[in-house]
Amino acid sequence: MAGSSFGNIFRITTWGESHGKGIGVVVDGCPAGLSLSEEDIQSFLNRRKPGQSKFTTQRQEADSVEILSGIFEGKTTGTPISMVVWNTDQRSHDYSEIASYYRPGHADFCFDEKYGFRDYRGGGRSSGRETIGRAAGGAIAAKLLEQMGITFLTYSRSIGPVTIDNSRFDPDEINNNKLYMPDAAAAEQASAYLEECMKNRNSCGGVIECVVKGLPVGLGDPVFEKLDANLAKAILSIGAVKGFEIGDGFAAAASTGLNNNDAFYMKDGKVEKKTNHSGGTLGGMSDGAPLVFRAAVKPTPSIASTQETVNQSGEEIEVNIKGRHDPIIVPRAVVVVESMAAITIVNALLSNMTAKLDRIIDFYR
Amino acid sequence: MAGSSFGNIFRITTWGESHGKGIGVVVDGCPAGLSLSEEDIQSFLNRRKPGQSKFTTQRQEADSVEILSGIFEGKTTGTPISMVVWNTDQRSHDYSEIASYYRPGHADFCFDEKYGFRDYRGGGRSSGRETIGRAAGGAIAAKLLEQMGITFLTYSRSIGPVTIDNSRFDPDEINNNKLYMPDAAAAEQASAYLEECMKNRNSCGGVIECVVKGLPVGLGDPVFEKLDANLAKAILSIGAVKGFEIGDGFAAAASTGLNNNDAFYMKDGKVEKKTNHSGGTLGGMSDGAPLVFRAAVKPTPSIASTQETVNQSGEEIEVNIKGRHDPIIVPRAVVVVESMAAITIVNALLSNMTAKLDRIIDFYR
Amino acid sequence: MAGSSFGNIFRITTWGESHGKGIGVVVDGCPAGLSLSEEDIQSFLNRRKPGQSKFTTQRQEADSVEILSGIFEGKTTGTPISMVVWNTDQRSHDYSEIASYYRPGHADFCFDEKYGFRDYRGGGRSSGRETIGRAAGGAIAAKLLEQMGITFLTYSRSIGPVTIDNSRFDPDEINNNKLYMPDAAAAEQASAYLEECMKNRNSCGGVIECVVKGLPVGLGDPVFEKLDANLAKAILSIGAVKGFEIGDGFAAAASTGLNNNDAFYMKDGKVEKKTNHSGGTLGGMSDGAPLVFRAAVKPTPSIASTQETVNQSGEEIEVNIKGRHDPIIVPRAVVVVESMAAITIVNALLSNMTAKLDRIIDFYR
Amino acid sequence: MAGSSFGNIFRITTWGESHGKGIGVVVDGCPAGLSLSEEDIQSFLNRRKPGQSKFTTQRQEADSVEILSGIFEGKTTGTPISMVVWNTDQRSHDYSEIASYYRPGHADFCFDEKYGFRDYRGGGRSSGRETIGRAAGGAIAAKLLEQMGITFLTYSRSIGPVTIDNSRFDPDEINNNKLYMPDAAAAEQASAYLEECMKNRNSCGGVIECVVKGLPVGLGDPVFEKLDANLAKAILSIGAVKGFEIGDGFAAAASTGLNNNDAFYMKDGKVEKKTNHSGGTLGGMSDGAPLVFRAAVKPTPSIASTQETVNQSGEEIEVNIKGRHDPIIVPRAVVVVESMAAITIVNALLSNMTAKLDRIIDFYR
Repeated sequence: MAGSSFGNIFRITTWGESHGKGIGVVVDGCPAGLSLSEEDIQSFLNRRKPGQSKFTTQRQEADSVEILSGIFEGKTTGTPISMVVWNTDQRSHDYSEIASYYRPGHADFCFDEKYGFRDYRGGGRSSGRETIGRAAGGAIAAKLLEQMGITFLTYSRSIGPVTIDNSRFDPDEINNNKLYMPDAAAAEQASAYLEECMKNRNSCGGVIECVVKGLPVGLGDPVFEKLDANLAKAILSIGAVKGFEIGDGFAAAASTGLNNNDAFYMKDGKVEKKTNHSGGTLGGMSDGAPLVFRAAVKPTPSIASTQETVNQSGEEIEVNIKGRHDPIIVPRAVVVVESMAAITIVNALLSNMTAKLDRIIDFYR
Repeated sequence: MAGSSFGNIFRITTWGESHGKGIGVVVDGCPAGLSLSEEDIQSFLNRRKPGQSKFTTQRQEADSVEILSGIFEGKTTGTPISMVVWNTDQRSHDYSEIASYYRPGHADFCFDEKYGFRDYRGGGRSSGRETIGRAAGGAIAAKLLEQMGITFLTYSRSIGPVTIDNSRFDPDEINNNKLYMPDAAAAEQASAYLEECMKNRNSCGGVIECVVKGLPVGLGDPVFEKLDANLAKAILSIGAVKGFEIGDGFAAAASTGLNNNDAFYMKDGKVEKKTNHSGGTLGGMSDGAPLVFRAAVKPTPSIASTQETVNQSGEEIEVNIKGRHDPIIVPRAVVVVESMAAITIVNALLSNMTAKLDRIIDFYR
Repeated sequence: MAGSSFGNIFRITTWGESHGKGIGVVVDGCPAGLSLSEEDIQSFLNRRKPGQSKFTTQRQEADSVEILSGIFEGKTTGTPISMVVWNTDQRSHDYSEIASYYRPGHADFCFDEKYGFRDYRGGGRSSGRETIGRAAGGAIAAKLLEQMGITFLTYSRSIGPVTIDNSRFDPDEINNNKLYMPDAAAAEQASAYLEECMKNRNSCGGVIECVVKGLPVGLGDPVFEKLDANLAKAILSIGAVKGFEIGDGFAAAASTGLNNNDAFYMKDGKVEKKTNHSGGTLGGMSDGAPLVFRAAVKPTPSIASTQETVNQSGEEIEVNIKGRHDPIIVPRAVVVVESMAAITIVNALLSNMTAKLDRIIDFYR
Repeated sequence: MAGSSFGNIFRITTWGESHGKGIGVVVDGCPAGLSLSEEDIQSFLNRRKPGQSKFTTQRQEADSVEILSGIFEGKTTGTPISMVVWNTDQRSHDYSEIASYYRPGHADFCFDEKYGFRDYRGGGRSSGRETIGRAAGGAIAAKLLEQMGITFLTYSRSIGPVTIDNSRFDPDEINNNKLYMPDAAAAEQASAYLEECMKNRNSCGGVIECVVKGLPVGLGDPVFEKLDANLAKAILSIGAVKGFEIGDGFAAAASTGLNNNDAFYMKDGKVEKKTNHSGGTLGGMSDGAPLVFRAAVKPTPSIASTQETVNQSGEEIEVNIKGRHDPIIVPRAVVVVESMAAITIVNALLSNMTAKLDRIIDFYR
């Protein structure tokens, strides 16, 4: 099944494996006339590239993007934008051993069952490197949304047991620490915790939060194409994500109607909400308040500790996974979450243009 | 945008409003040869129909389904199965007042902004009655999966502050109490809590859990069409759902690799997992363990207490929402969650048939 | 596979069989705010309903449409519009014999091979009655396009050996004769030819032509979603259509560049074309000239003459197909061709709104 | 709109412009386990590459394909296969003049209206070079179909006024002449005609025919996803194609039921048809006979003769189009027609696997 595309109007199609020639993406359906350069893309890729800190894999990759099509005289033409990042540090010898067994917490076993065999080098298609294509596509989506005043704030909300303190929330701090936390003190605690994890040949998970401001009211459709439903798919499609919640999310399940309902009121002649328990959607459509959602990310499954598993011959064995693995996925996944959200929102924004007949008639007048 | 369809191979398309002539669904892509009767559908609809207990709306609806096409001599023909439930108790006078203002926690405001106006009777298209179509489609999907040994256990895991105790888990109890809880004691506590809510003109939320057994390994695709991603969309597309998690979900975010990884071992000559923190998927594909996921459902937004809001003239007003509303959405949504999961899984199952060339060649030999 | 839907933004999903309870369609994605009544739909259905002349089946069907959802206070709400035509004259005894054998020129054999069995009553899902749903959806699409000044002229261009004479072309004549020909003399000749066919227990084919005026330039996309490509699919999806051509079509294949190219010139300050060999598209996009295309329709396969075939037991037999069949499909298919074209064009029109960034920014300003 | 993808299960997504860095395609949804090499792809690309004869552009391009992903140890893995042909001979100075005016018969005008500007170098995205991606994808589809005994014969049926003589039909001759005609004498006449065209600074059109053998019965779906409907879209999506017909096509429109119906009979215990007027489909499904369809291709619009047009300033001008253009599109489009047909058929073949419940149960047993 063709499962490597996301989005219907603005669509990304990703390709490539961890240890193949490169990782790429085709962005199709981008409106014509957007100024776009490789620098725009690179700024997103740099947020997820390896080697940013001691907590990220030491694989040496510049992750330099090359645009192959779709841009003419500095602008998007409306035709597909093909982009590639060539793999340069493909030490596949690191991975040859894992060809024979199934790493716990990884998809190896499922690949063999589903397809009969697998590209075992570095996880192949299930490698985190697959998200390069998402971030490249997300950079375009985010730049497009920026033109309409829609902005993103995405960050690590918790790492292992360390959660940010909202009273210390500082958006400027996000890019100031290697963990993309908006709270310097929490980032420091989290760093200490991560060093402990590494010492113990262990890894940990965390939560990413994304806040989107400036959305017009009415994005998303009332039934299956709810904005939150598409966001949920977008976020759960990222490897290692195990949960999604919008607004109060699981806490809303323990709340009451009186507490959870957001009262409407008038502000500067506009309808607004006094609170935002809903996280910016009502009935699947954006309600004018900031969109707020969270993604739960599991611990990195590749750990150096001894683990039990089986090999392809059906023997039970013990393994120690070698390689250059991050003790935590969260910080590098922050930009991927933002990218998938941006792509989802661009689609909702473009789709929404056909909702009302009078607006359509105006458009073509 | 055409947003009332779900699924690509096995697809449901729902239609109808709370106070229109009826609620319907077209199920397209159902394989030929499945024995199917109106009773099969009705058994699902009965699990969500009103009037089951004091905790559900007193609207009088039999919710009797009529099959209009797609069945010949008791079997599906491979052509679209059209089904309808005629609305019989449409007291729209109950709702005429809400035409003029925006109910907190409802989509009224978003509808007006997006479409210019709305069918305000009983929430129109955003009514919970829209899920009748989903349950009717889900009944077919579930019956189809049953033929392949795939079974569902779906229930209320928590209602307000009351959560089931796993040590008392009894699957037979689920259909034994009006709250669809697998724990009689918890159901009793929850009932008491709900009566308190109703006395206070308040409502509450809860969590639905779904366990699917018997899935073959490899359903779902590695990138955007992950089984969990499609489940997340399916579940978040249900009104009032604010969160989704699979396996340990948000708890995995606070765990470590050593704790969260599921070790593989051999059981009766087959590869299995010792634990199931992953909830039955790895890399987006089913891993052979039971699929376990949860949905967070917000409190019913329609409450009889006084609430602040604004009307269409932009005046701030106080409202008391009349009508026949459930103090909790969870029990009646249990079958809707199961239905959306069944539809998602049928699609993954059918889609997976094209994964391997040798299986395809065998098929056509 | 879910194959009963057409269109991505404005989408129709049809259901129903010749001798089932009824024939229906769900129109999803129709913009909100279009005035719509059952009369609007009925006017299209009347153009294809049986019993209009001696050349159409004598099956007695009023084909009265009932709208079940999606309209509120006389206008579309943006939610799915469900419509049904109840079957009233289902003399299935007429058809019981054909259960056992494969009618030449029909899909009976293919149904049995593909699905294992079939609803043999009146062709089941492959009956011409399936097009009721298309015409109902087309009526809405055409009304929507009418608001933007886009109009259709669709007619029988040839019936058997009789082709209209362009020098006698009279649009007012189209609805004046039972054959929907824009040439009274040709209609008379064709009638005589059809009587001959009926006398010989034979049937004949013909060509339908459609001219669409008022299209803005740029509808359709340059590669796979060419306007002509989607039209071709739309038209070939109608049963009995065996060919499609746009502009000069097959004649262009015998022409030269000098003759076939349409020169651009200026008219009233606008770029226009001196000729229209292209039929209104260039590179898959509308070019501002009238869209002109043709559909080749095969002779009605159900004929009363003796024919050779085989039965389900694999015996070679001779059959005479009874029933109430039209000696020609063309006249009643005229409105179906127009409907499928209208649906295709609405989709192209809505899709085109996202082509240019500056228009999108304007839209949301 | 994302319009650069074709196919739903087996899907190609093409990118690239005539004078950009390269032309590429991502093939997604190819089943795992197909042996595939760059040679397999190259053999298809060689059939459309420039410089094969005096009748094709003298642009110097080796059109060497490079596979970037999706293959491991010589076999497809089930993940996206990314392929690229780097442009090497991009003399864009040849094209700079056409930036300012609208070439007759080309999409220049439509691009400017739709997108606001265009990549004018060599037609940009509307260049014939875009079909490289289709042929690369088609090579894979055709190889896959070959494994199941499905084979293609595609050739030039007519070039200008010269049509092949069926009595001289020789499949081995197709690759023996530069015009891909299965009739050596016709090829010679066509060559003479083409030389005349070139001398007159003119061009001509032609007809391509494709015959597919070995299809199982039942491919395609009865309503909108008819096999012929999808083929029609596939073929009309190729630039310069103006018509499509299957079986007797437009000739069927002038035939009668008695002549056009194909009688069924028994052959070696199997149901077959005595004739094949239908061209291998009935009711949109393959009927077991060879699939036979034709594409009408217009004359190359770029001709060296003086033509009238307008420029972007709205002035009427005369132009002589320079550049290296083929006097006929047909021969190089033969492999493109075959490719699009192969992709369409692979999709129908894979989709058909879910038609019958008992086959699905068997599959998963």
